[in-house]
Amino acid sequence: MSAPVPRGSYAKSAQVRQRILEVCVDVFGEVGFYGASTKDIAQRAGISHTGLRHHFPRKEDLLAAVLQLRDDQTAPLREAAWALEPRTRPVEALLGMLAVLAKLELQPGVMALYCVTSGEATTTEHPAHAYFTERYRGLRNFYATAYKALAEQGGLRSETDTNTLAIMTVALIKGLEEQWFFDRDTVRIERTVRTFIGSFVPALAP
Amino acid sequence: MSAPVPRGSYAKSAQVRQRILEVCVDVFGEVGFYGASTKDIAQRAGISHTGLRHHFPRKEDLLAAVLQLRDDQTAPLREAAWALEPRTRPVEALLGMLAVLAKLELQPGVMALYCVTSGEATTTEHPAHAYFTERYRGLRNFYATAYKALAEQGGLRSETDTNTLAIMTVALIKGLEEQWFFDRDTVRIERTVRTFIGSFVPALAP
Repeated sequence: MSAPVPRGSYAKSAQVRQRILEVCVDVFGEVGFYGASTKDIAQRAGISHTGLRHHFPRKEDLLAAVLQLRDDQTAPLREAAWALEPRTRPVEALLGMLAVLAKLELQPGVMALYCVTSGEATTTEHPAHAYFTERYRGLRNFYATAYKALAEQGGLRSETDTNTLAIMTVALIKGLEEQWFFDRDTVRIERTVRTFIGSFVPALAP
Repeated sequence: MSAPVPRGSYAKSAQVRQRILEVCVDVFGEVGFYGASTKDIAQRAGISHTGLRHHFPRKEDLLAAVLQLRDDQTAPLREAAWALEPRTRPVEALLGMLAVLAKLELQPGVMALYCVTSGEATTTEHPAHAYFTERYRGLRNFYATAYKALAEQGGLRSETDTNTLAIMTVALIKGLEEQWFFDRDTVRIERTVRTFIGSFVPALAP
């Protein structure tokens, strides 16, 4: 049974919200939350400022919605990685995360959104500070769970503890994403992360 | 022979510039280049907007000057690291860079300045895009030079090529700096970088 196609004003409203949020990916990715102007967003989305405020009363609501939208769009890949169960099938779970990374360079707009807003969000006053705190914690948890499972199975060759390896992995990914924007010919995100993990997880070595 | 102490209007002007730039470390570190308001900067520095524009005609000039100021302030440490010659004395040079990193957690304001503005600067239109491109290139060059020298001396144990190790090191540092802001109790910048480098440079292993 397929879901009915939404019609009339509800469908139109959903389309407008979608168009606004697609504009927000670009705007927040270009100038960040603080630099973004809701008037500019409304203009680029082709609606009035009043219309924009009807859908999203505050600029904070726009940022929250656009981060949520992107989370929803990448959810199948991330859920697939978690569904592969880092605790019981760590190699498959790590490969699942590498598959997510392999798509990043094809989505520079989304990557810019995260680079710019997570950099801004280092201050506790930023509306997405809690979001990124939770995001970082979740990513560390994923990698630490996989590495601990590998260690128990004898599939980890490192003198570094698994929590530190998880912190390193998350930091490496973030740093590569940003560095890539400054030298796209030199920096390879997925390949470099795979090389790093492969240096202590033989099952992932090239 | 010591330099004469500047007097009169020149000294006062230098003091005002210094005060403006100290305010800019905070403002750019809080809301980034796009979010910063020159009126807010003037007010926090206790001068008129006209006075601010006399010293720094454009907001771009403020960002360039504050990045230059911080480069000058950390120059002794960085120059000390380069002076240790990564090509001929790689272990000492790497230890010199770790000494720079060890001070980072004590300077969250400066680290925030770099986190927020380098995140923003991922777009090529940003006034500091060229600055960070050059900064990343210089850092990669430093680590690659040290690792190549170590490889020639038999002091490197890794199957990963030295350029990739350099890209990884620079990415790891950047990613740890940002991650630290979201969980200061869990993330240790210098210790984690030392553990990473120590995993393939036995001379730096804990």
